[in-house]
Amino acid sequence: MTLDKEKTTIGFIGTGVMGKSMAGHLVKAGYRVKVFNRTKARTDELIRLGAEWKDTVGELAAECGVIITMVGYPQDVEDIYLGEGGIIREAKPGTYLIDMTTSTPSLARRIFAEARAKGLLALDAPVSGGDVGAREARLAIMAGGEEADFKAVLPILNLMGVNIVLQGPAGAGQHTKMCNQIAIASGMIGVCEAMAYAVRAGLNPEVVLKSIAGGAAGSWSLSNLAPRMIAGDFEPGFYVKHMIKDMVIALDSAREMGLMTPGLELAKSLYDKLAAQGANERGTQVLFKLYLEERPLDFRAAR
Amino acid sequence: MTLDKEKTTIGFIGTGVMGKSMAGHLVKAGYRVKVFNRTKARTDELIRLGAEWKDTVGELAAECGVIITMVGYPQDVEDIYLGEGGIIREAKPGTYLIDMTTSTPSLARRIFAEARAKGLLALDAPVSGGDVGAREARLAIMAGGEEADFKAVLPILNLMGVNIVLQGPAGAGQHTKMCNQIAIASGMIGVCEAMAYAVRAGLNPEVVLKSIAGGAAGSWSLSNLAPRMIAGDFEPGFYVKHMIKDMVIALDSAREMGLMTPGLELAKSLYDKLAAQGANERGTQVLFKLYLEERPLDFRAAR
Repeated sequence: MTLDKEKTTIGFIGTGVMGKSMAGHLVKAGYRVKVFNRTKARTDELIRLGAEWKDTVGELAAECGVIITMVGYPQDVEDIYLGEGGIIREAKPGTYLIDMTTSTPSLARRIFAEARAKGLLALDAPVSGGDVGAREARLAIMAGGEEADFKAVLPILNLMGVNIVLQGPAGAGQHTKMCNQIAIASGMIGVCEAMAYAVRAGLNPEVVLKSIAGGAAGSWSLSNLAPRMIAGDFEPGFYVKHMIKDMVIALDSAREMGLMTPGLELAKSLYDKLAAQGANERGTQVLFKLYLEERPLDFRAAR
Repeated sequence: MTLDKEKTTIGFIGTGVMGKSMAGHLVKAGYRVKVFNRTKARTDELIRLGAEWKDTVGELAAECGVIITMVGYPQDVEDIYLGEGGIIREAKPGTYLIDMTTSTPSLARRIFAEARAKGLLALDAPVSGGDVGAREARLAIMAGGEEADFKAVLPILNLMGVNIVLQGPAGAGQHTKMCNQIAIASGMIGVCEAMAYAVRAGLNPEVVLKSIAGGAAGSWSLSNLAPRMIAGDFEPGFYVKHMIKDMVIALDSAREMGLMTPGLELAKSLYDKLAAQGANERGTQVLFKLYLEERPLDFRAAR
């Protein structure tokens, strides 16, 4: 089955930094889009583009053939899908449900099962690529669910991303996102320790990057975040608070599977320290500061 | 000052996997090269190419205008440079000494100082790029020392590498190499934990790589070593025992500078465990096995 664009109404719940861009692509592609967000003002731009505001999740759910959610925390996902007046209770049979929030694999499986019992077709489809990826429709989308359902909504996912892979059954999308975050977590420790070492050793960290960024130590974080660390730019690309949220999910999930993750545990403990110092709203590269805390951050003076 | 190829004899000490390729490039470029190695048989190929065997380090040192060392451990470097019949005692004033071994920054500074007192010109210039980089003359070379000395020997370094950067005064090359190894150490933990999570979660780790290798989780290790982990290929690109040696140097050096490096400490403790299990001669990607040790390594069965 493929979805007919003229007859398909898409509901989009959660129009924050990411969701706003993603929903915008759907409106611009000609889909009829209905939106709901906890803070109504954050839908203004979409409504100017042609989206329609709905007052409740339930109302939206009852009127749309495809429902996409991009909210904050697993608890929000649970409320919106499984709560009173939630999506699963209100959606019509045959509706496609796509949760693009980074959430727990076990919740994704539960939503899938409850959806299926009501004749609803659920996919988990978290993304990576950040606000820039969302804006430029270049997200990586990691999906879990049934292949037929994935194929049916693929034309819609294609409007938001470029690297879209069905990773397996329900929950597999979330699991894959956790792999992504786990690799990032310890990788960031390595980048921060390498740069802090460079500073303490009296090297010019920018020149060090010229030697090491292109070889076996190379990574996206080293090329993209180390220069920001060095420049003292701790503005959020990806928020500390969101990194912590994702690490909590990954740690819980790893524990359930009996997998040791000492690197992830270390990263979580370091970011918890940062959060306790008020760094929740900074970018994840702020971890660098933790390594130089006893010294002034203007490392040019330390040379 | 630039070195005249016709009048310059290069001494090369340490013709293991890396050194053999590096010295070979110098011979092929037309330099007169004299070689010494603990195991003489490992110089056979170079001698066929036209290099000349010397029976002792001291004899070699006395006859060469440039001396390059590429040996195993800091203790070897210390013996060869500072020991009885060593380079500093035997070399003629004005000789360039280039230690390309990965060794300690403090030893590099000591050699520089002792060399200078004898009118010798010392550089530390460790490399990254492995046996393939050595063979293809595509090494990254991270140098520490005086700029004039660096410039004088640059035509020789250019025969072995492509990314050749003077990082600062004596020891700065070794410090930069430590930055490289520190970034690799924690990065490898992230790659292993991500791949082990994928296996335990029942995902196909090769398909997971399609979703995550090109984004913010991407790294040289994820692209190049994760596929080997998945395939059960633990052949050495870079040996566990060498990784441990480098981490010991980095940890000592970080301690001297009062820098905390919990990620590096964790990596060292994990690799120590592997070494205790007999993994010294395997490639560093064998760390992956530690995460799956309670389960059979054939994870296809675990799905």
